[in-house]
Amino acid sequence: MDDRKAGGEDVFALLRSVVDVLESSHTLTPSGAVVQYHDPLDLETLLDFKLGDETSADQLMDLISKTVKFSVRTSHPLFFNQLYGGTDPFGLAGAVVSEALNTSAYTHEVAPVFSLSEREVLKASLKLVGFDDGDGIFSPGGSISNMYGIVLSRFRRFPDSKKDGVYGLPTLVIYTSQDVSRKIDTLSMYFLFNYFNRLLVHSQSHYSVTKGANWLGLGTSNVVKIESDARGKMIPSKLEEAIRNSISEGKIPLIVNCTSGTTVLGAFDPLEEIAKICEAHGIWMHVDGLLKSCNMAGATYLFQPDKMYDPSYDSGDLSVQCGRKVDSFKLWTLWKYRGNCALGELVDHAVEMANYFLDTIRNRPGFRLVLDEFETTNVCFWFIPPRLRDCDETEDWWSQIHKVGPALKKKLVESGDMMIGYQPLEHRNLKNFFRMVVTCHPPRTKSDMDSAVGLIEKYGNQL
Amino acid sequence: MDDRKAGGEDVFALLRSVVDVLESSHTLTPSGAVVQYHDPLDLETLLDFKLGDETSADQLMDLISKTVKFSVRTSHPLFFNQLYGGTDPFGLAGAVVSEALNTSAYTHEVAPVFSLSEREVLKASLKLVGFDDGDGIFSPGGSISNMYGIVLSRFRRFPDSKKDGVYGLPTLVIYTSQDVSRKIDTLSMYFLFNYFNRLLVHSQSHYSVTKGANWLGLGTSNVVKIESDARGKMIPSKLEEAIRNSISEGKIPLIVNCTSGTTVLGAFDPLEEIAKICEAHGIWMHVDGLLKSCNMAGATYLFQPDKMYDPSYDSGDLSVQCGRKVDSFKLWTLWKYRGNCALGELVDHAVEMANYFLDTIRNRPGFRLVLDEFETTNVCFWFIPPRLRDCDETEDWWSQIHKVGPALKKKLVESGDMMIGYQPLEHRNLKNFFRMVVTCHPPRTKSDMDSAVGLIEKYGNQL
Repeated sequence: MDDRKAGGEDVFALLRSVVDVLESSHTLTPSGAVVQYHDPLDLETLLDFKLGDETSADQLMDLISKTVKFSVRTSHPLFFNQLYGGTDPFGLAGAVVSEALNTSAYTHEVAPVFSLSEREVLKASLKLVGFDDGDGIFSPGGSISNMYGIVLSRFRRFPDSKKDGVYGLPTLVIYTSQDVSRKIDTLSMYFLFNYFNRLLVHSQSHYSVTKGANWLGLGTSNVVKIESDARGKMIPSKLEEAIRNSISEGKIPLIVNCTSGTTVLGAFDPLEEIAKICEAHGIWMHVDGLLKSCNMAGATYLFQPDKMYDPSYDSGDLSVQCGRKVDSFKLWTLWKYRGNCALGELVDHAVEMANYFLDTIRNRPGFRLVLDEFETTNVCFWFIPPRLRDCDETEDWWSQIHKVGPALKKKLVESGDMMIGYQPLEHRNLKNFFRMVVTCHPPRTKSDMDSAVGLIEKYGNQL
Repeated sequence: MDDRKAGGEDVFALLRSVVDVLESSHTLTPSGAVVQYHDPLDLETLLDFKLGDETSADQLMDLISKTVKFSVRTSHPLFFNQLYGGTDPFGLAGAVVSEALNTSAYTHEVAPVFSLSEREVLKASLKLVGFDDGDGIFSPGGSISNMYGIVLSRFRRFPDSKKDGVYGLPTLVIYTSQDVSRKIDTLSMYFLFNYFNRLLVHSQSHYSVTKGANWLGLGTSNVVKIESDARGKMIPSKLEEAIRNSISEGKIPLIVNCTSGTTVLGAFDPLEEIAKICEAHGIWMHVDGLLKSCNMAGATYLFQPDKMYDPSYDSGDLSVQCGRKVDSFKLWTLWKYRGNCALGELVDHAVEMANYFLDTIRNRPGFRLVLDEFETTNVCFWFIPPRLRDCDETEDWWSQIHKVGPALKKKLVESGDMMIGYQPLEHRNLKNFFRMVVTCHPPRTKSDMDSAVGLIEKYGNQL
């Protein structure tokens, strides 16, 4: 076999070239545009995506350069879009190591170091939220994590459903806030744990809860959305009322999905009051040590009792997956380097910058806040172009404001100056508004926040 | 904020140090041991896993060096363990890019290049299996993929179950082979597609199907295991019989999970015969274009109709996840570089090496094959130490053979010379045997395969 087939390439020269490309394009220390945006059809003319024939290593490096060039720079300080943010360098170092080793996390035998670092990340995380003897598993995102929660609650209440399915059961009801909720990634979740120093139940959202209800055979119509207050926090008395309604209809309240930082408004549900209601009705609110018996399927070819080490170090049977990427390792490397204090300060700093932005726009012409105060680092606001200021706020006026989001976003993205999300909140009859999401990486400066305000005005005033 | 908190470190110097560590430790071009094995408790004394206080960058690099040192080298030619293998350098290059950019794959807006490269990987893959207008999504592993299949089959047959749950439905039955099946990762699946040039249904296993039946509310007892022939292939007449039994019990046959390369014996179910049975009974056998309507939950904050581009480029609503890692990109980079031909040849070569190993041990003293022929690159065999040869094969003899697997594995791992899996197959009453898994990376040589035979004899003859 020649080198192309045999994998005899100089791997490390290749990796160094990739690092060179990342450096020369300022991927992680950005200057210049947040994104060089092109429509899908245009982009297809700029990169040859087609697979089939081989290319040279130089051609591939050119494609990699273009990939970096035309991708979104999530590490740019003016990337304020939803759901994710920049890269922590020490997390990236861990990610490169785990990708290079190509380890799967299901048994200690094949993942000796990674199985122990995952245990430590879980242990340290549990300590932050005050669980002395909890257990956990890293899962690929919030939607799957929510399904774990629902499956665990079902197993606790109806252990036979694992074997028999849910056919014979009464209808099971899932309660969640009517406000679409934030999908906090694991990392920011732990940062937030530290900052707010209170018990946070894993991220929820009725978007992902609805998907989970479908997948798990419980039905999307059995997700009951509980009314929230002006800030977006679930109203305990409404939950209590919904639970009583379910019971009177012969249904069984199964689980309350609490939200600690809703997706849009960043609200925290009143966990302690909800906990009391859950306790009174025997409803699942949080995850405990049932993971193993709930998920285990005990593949004999993986989890033999005759191992050369204590098989309790294998995590595969806790997971609904089998092989898993060692996603915890990058969290371990960055946490190891930064330590609890610096992580806490990163969160403090993000909150400070969000508050600075909030104070800057609070009474500024053209800006209107969706809420007076926000509980996380999300700041939601409308921008009102000069021609629409001091007008009667009729239905027509609001429908014009609704169009400002897409139009201003288009200008910001086409110029490459900044990325920020917008969305309506239909159940509150709120037209498209912007959502500034301030993450820990990269840490923002006041000058970054001022730039954001300036850019919104620059393009918004033209609309 | 100081640098530690602000992320002002020299990212690229750090990445180059990581590449240096990978190179100096021969991670991807291994010489020396497959693993430097330590028991969990010993390993905890060799690395300080504890999280809490900060460490210096030098201390972290030292921990990273030790992580590499004490991890399993999956790119070593004598790593023959189950489920995964070595790293393709061009795939690694793609992985580093996608980790550095930290992109999530749910909308074209935030993942412009990656959304197009994923489409191309899906298109090229579908072409290999002969689907002209299929669709797909990258999911985090075989277990989740199997759940997609089951959810799709349920939605096609009972679309209202998405909304109502499965409470009112008759019991739904899932059929799968009694042989625990291979969890083919996406990559090797596509390689195998190419090699075998036939329709392969996505990887199945009753281990993961059982987990899926639990999660999806269908119940593990409604997974019916169909008897397989001597080679491990599902017997169509037994499937037909099981389907008739389900119907006579008032149950509904929902899906047949076919297996193309069982986990242990590497058997391919007779897909065409099974397809005829499925067609006759209206049972789901494969995945088609229902992905969207089945999974969609339409979060308005992500999938607005008023976007600046065609929202059909967003993939988030196809997935049960929301944010997803851009796992397809590393497949795109390596496929782009190598091209169809070289990928096909890599598979041919892996099959050739597995067959060379098979021929070498076929009549060799001390080796006994579990099957005469194997359909994938798995080769299953017992090793019989000299003291147990030419003895009566009593129950006691077999119980001694059963102990050879763990004992020989222990010696191979403690010496660090080689890693290979072993397991029993209980439903066939087969005692612990070895399973040589030959993967595409690193491409093995005849000399590697001879070394494997030699090492098994060296340590096995002492037992």
